Amino acid sequence: MRPKRRPGIYLAMETSIEFNLADTVALLSRTPATLDLWLRGLPDSWVRSNEGLSNDGSDTWSAFDIVGHLIAGERNDWMPRARIILEKGEARPFDPFDRFAQARESQGKSLHQLLDEFTRLRRENLAALQALNLQPQDLTRRGTHPALGAVALSELLATWAVHDLTHLHQLSRVMARQYRGAVGPWSAYLGVLHCAGHSA
Amino acid sequence: MRPKRRPGIYLAMETSIEFNLADTVALLSRTPATLDLWLRGLPDSWVRSNEGLSNDGSDTWSAFDIVGHLIAGERNDWMPRARIILEKGEARPFDPFDRFAQARESQGKSLHQLLDEFTRLRRENLAALQALNLQPQDLTRRGTHPALGAVALSELLATWAVHDLTHLHQLSRVMARQYRGAVGPWSAYLGVLHCAGHSA
Repeated sequence: MRPKRRPGIYLAMETSIEFNLADTVALLSRTPATLDLWLRGLPDSWVRSNEGLSNDGSDTWSAFDIVGHLIAGERNDWMPRARIILEKGEARPFDPFDRFAQARESQGKSLHQLLDEFTRLRRENLAALQALNLQPQDLTRRGTHPALGAVALSELLATWAVHDLTHLHQLSRVMARQYRGAVGPWSAYLGVLHCAGHSA
Repeated sequence: MRPKRRPGIYLAMETSIEFNLADTVALLSRTPATLDLWLRGLPDSWVRSNEGLSNDGSDTWSAFDIVGHLIAGERNDWMPRARIILEKGEARPFDPFDRFAQARESQGKSLHQLLDEFTRLRRENLAALQALNLQPQDLTRRGTHPALGAVALSELLATWAVHDLTHLHQLSRVMARQYRGAVGPWSAYLGVLHCAGHSA
């Protein structure tokens, strides 16, 4: 509970840790169970509501959509891109990430089914990652991102983990938004209600 | 993965749901297990690192500090304030919330101990809430917040839930920040890395 809003820019003591494969896997392996515990069995009012229309007129995402998006990443993005780096290097650019794949793939499914599917795919992908038996020199190998250019395998794997966190961040915001009227005057103190997202 | 940053202001279809006690308890009851699955056993680099110094020169919070803060709320804030509303009404203002209580109370404890403590206190508080057997007319009863003035019991209970979400939001941001160098050029696409907090 914080008494006053101020721009929260941090001036000093910039902390950042080096990429570490075991720590990355530790985080990636926890996300399915975290989401499962958080969402399974919650009423639809929490998990099927989004944030309304975005400023470009498109629908924003509900918790259901977010889990669908994480599934699409497991299928189409992270490990396929890691394999392109290891097998083709910079010569073969990645396929662009389809942000809307989940709308088609999630259609007609329940949140329970999506949570099960995400859990299974993440487990399979982490097993496949372990089977690659990556060595430190592999982590510096590079591929070509269609928009960003040259990227290292370590950066891809770090992004996989931070991508989980960015969607947990979004999830807490989407859910909180449903109660922004219900909290009454406390909304002034609840930072998550003042988050309008950070990318579009 | 989003290709371009834009201010994410949502213009239309403002959604917000009415307060519902069962839905609120559904969310509150999930937070301890969600945090436990997310954090228990993670390396200290994820759970003991903060976001550096804030712009007023004070320390920002690590995952460890956040769990400590949630414990302090269970002890000193939510149910004690609910009881003040039901027993004293608006005549007796709440005690101010001590945002720094957790630094003292968490000292020397492990994250595992804090997670266990939060789980126990939340369970006890939700049992106490259920024992109050609140009726619809109770939810409109009012108390006096020391800064905000008159607040309804339903607003206090909704705030309890959104307060969980605001700290899950913060947690994802604090953890992501540790990898903001490791993701390389992908940082442009990862919204959570552009969140500087929303209150101070």
